[in-house]
Amino acid sequence: MSSSQVEYEYEEKVQLGQSIQRYYTDKISELNLSGFDRIKAYLNETSLGQSRFISRDIIFAHKDFEPFTSFLARGESFTIISGLNPSSPLHLGHKVLFDMLLYLQKLGADIYIPITNDESYLDGKTSSLAESRRIAYEEIIPNIIAFGFNPKKTHIFVMSDYPDVYNLAIHISKHVTNNLTTQVFGEKALDNSGKAFYRSAVQLAQILLPQLPEFGGPRPTLIPVGIDQHPYVLLARDAAKKAGFMPPAELIFKFQNSLPNPLEKLSGSQPKTAIYLNDSDEVIRRKIQGAFTGAVSSLESHREVGGVPEACSVFSLLNFHHSDDRFVADLYKQYTTGEITTQELKKITAEFIVAAITEHREKTAQVSNVSDFLLDKPLNSFLSI
Amino acid sequence: MSSSQVEYEYEEKVQLGQSIQRYYTDKISELNLSGFDRIKAYLNETSLGQSRFISRDIIFAHKDFEPFTSFLARGESFTIISGLNPSSPLHLGHKVLFDMLLYLQKLGADIYIPITNDESYLDGKTSSLAESRRIAYEEIIPNIIAFGFNPKKTHIFVMSDYPDVYNLAIHISKHVTNNLTTQVFGEKALDNSGKAFYRSAVQLAQILLPQLPEFGGPRPTLIPVGIDQHPYVLLARDAAKKAGFMPPAELIFKFQNSLPNPLEKLSGSQPKTAIYLNDSDEVIRRKIQGAFTGAVSSLESHREVGGVPEACSVFSLLNFHHSDDRFVADLYKQYTTGEITTQELKKITAEFIVAAITEHREKTAQVSNVSDFLLDKPLNSFLSI
Repeated sequence: MSSSQVEYEYEEKVQLGQSIQRYYTDKISELNLSGFDRIKAYLNETSLGQSRFISRDIIFAHKDFEPFTSFLARGESFTIISGLNPSSPLHLGHKVLFDMLLYLQKLGADIYIPITNDESYLDGKTSSLAESRRIAYEEIIPNIIAFGFNPKKTHIFVMSDYPDVYNLAIHISKHVTNNLTTQVFGEKALDNSGKAFYRSAVQLAQILLPQLPEFGGPRPTLIPVGIDQHPYVLLARDAAKKAGFMPPAELIFKFQNSLPNPLEKLSGSQPKTAIYLNDSDEVIRRKIQGAFTGAVSSLESHREVGGVPEACSVFSLLNFHHSDDRFVADLYKQYTTGEITTQELKKITAEFIVAAITEHREKTAQVSNVSDFLLDKPLNSFLSI
Repeated sequence: MSSSQVEYEYEEKVQLGQSIQRYYTDKISELNLSGFDRIKAYLNETSLGQSRFISRDIIFAHKDFEPFTSFLARGESFTIISGLNPSSPLHLGHKVLFDMLLYLQKLGADIYIPITNDESYLDGKTSSLAESRRIAYEEIIPNIIAFGFNPKKTHIFVMSDYPDVYNLAIHISKHVTNNLTTQVFGEKALDNSGKAFYRSAVQLAQILLPQLPEFGGPRPTLIPVGIDQHPYVLLARDAAKKAGFMPPAELIFKFQNSLPNPLEKLSGSQPKTAIYLNDSDEVIRRKIQGAFTGAVSSLESHREVGGVPEACSVFSLLNFHHSDDRFVADLYKQYTTGEITTQELKKITAEFIVAAITEHREKTAQVSNVSDFLLDKPLNSFLSI
């Protein structure tokens, strides 16, 4: 490999890393979001600031999160709503979300988890409500519980088994016009009335139900989302105000990138792009082995110029999932300098991910208290006068 | 009054009566409905043919009703679904419907009555779900039960208290496209997603739920409607086939006309046009006194030329509600020949309606077994595999 070839290849990786970073900084200004710079200093004094989620910019932006920093500092209770679509099995993209939810629960959060089997069915991700419901109970819920949530502060509901939410959706639906819905979701996502009702009303009902009098009335709530879901949160904030609820605040996660292409988001419906929590050790190792990396193609040159962790789907796995800051920082340095090779990085990462998923799999198999987590309180405050 | 004036006035009444009749015959050909001519002869041998509903053309058209004539003749069970919007109080337009439902129940029909408080709220007829729910339990349901329905064969449900129907609506919604819904209902009727979901999916779920396995599986069902609701039935028949249910058959009622204007339909939200089942005797008499009649304006000339019952909102009340064919036929003749005056007709009609409503009011006050009629069976056959 000529040195100009190496230089070209390296430069491409650097630019790739930069464009990934730029995607997020652009989004912050484009969508008028708040970054964490202003409150990072403050957060560093709380345990949230010391967690990887903010220190590594895994959560890179927010809307109205400031007040929660005080709740966190004072150990006050607040509510998080985080829905899940039961179609494909959970993957590492979910793991980082649940790691953070567990973290916030330990700091005081009450967590509501709607399992949206209606959405899975409406969007054609499963062939029936029954199928997505089966996935919810057999796969999704035990996997969630295995993260170690506290049943007293975790409220899971499968939409088809908690149809009271539809009443709340009817109640709220009058505060959302079709015009706004079409603007936010686009016509294609609304091509039957079930989808339209789901996106513009049922989803809002899921977000707002913890603020009903039966749960104590209006209270600060927080929704963790990916950047692609930000428009839905805007819709929810608008409808919440109109319907007499507190508008939910928002934490926005970076995408976990596709293993073969760091410019794309991993997708649960494309097995090559993601590692599932039920993948076998062998499949995990094979997926990591085939992932896109931040190193130039010649080993010799890598030793010389070093790798680009920002463009590396393998390093990204450690960055999102490994909780030890020093360990990750050391690897970052060793990879950047070429001190460790891509093969070594892959091996370290595969060992770590296999161990984490093995542990998770064992915990999931032991879950036996599903019913302790299920929400079944009737929602009827708005049905009586 | 000159004789040419009288002739002109009389001719106007005749033409009015004809144009009311023509409205219905035109609808039959325009919408490709079936009239009753072909099966009236057959029906005359059954008790349905001897009832006023078909003999007086109160039910003037149908879709696929033929097979039901055999069920009726053999006393076989079938299902009727007839929804009700709980906003304004029940009026005489409802009474003729419930008279007929009771009649069909005695001949074998199992009756499902969805009380659509969601629709009332979505359409802005009530300010909240709670308000339309209150009207449902306090006014509508006792009034329905007072007609004398059999609790074993009558299944009433208030939508917000039976949210399982929404699951069924989600299940069915994939069989209805937005294009078809917009074509049937028009954009204005769908201006938020709740309305669209209600009209294109929830309404279908109400119609199709008696065909779920929990109620015995697919079976012949019949929907009595006004002609304005015919397009919704077409939508339901289409979706039923696609979703694996039997398409519902349809009986189409003539409108009961507005008291002051026989060319218009009475409207529950316009008190002057209709007599409510909770109107006082005095109000009933006053409304009938002010109704449009089929007589020319000079009493002397009326004695000479006679009245036109087909154009008379007062005679129409007798025709729709009085069950004695001979009594109604005699009055028809006496009014047509001028033998009785409009004042006499009004007095006879007012006495009859006041007596009927007084009796109904007393029965309503005695209703105490509401819960015997309420449907609360979980709908979950489509949620399990």
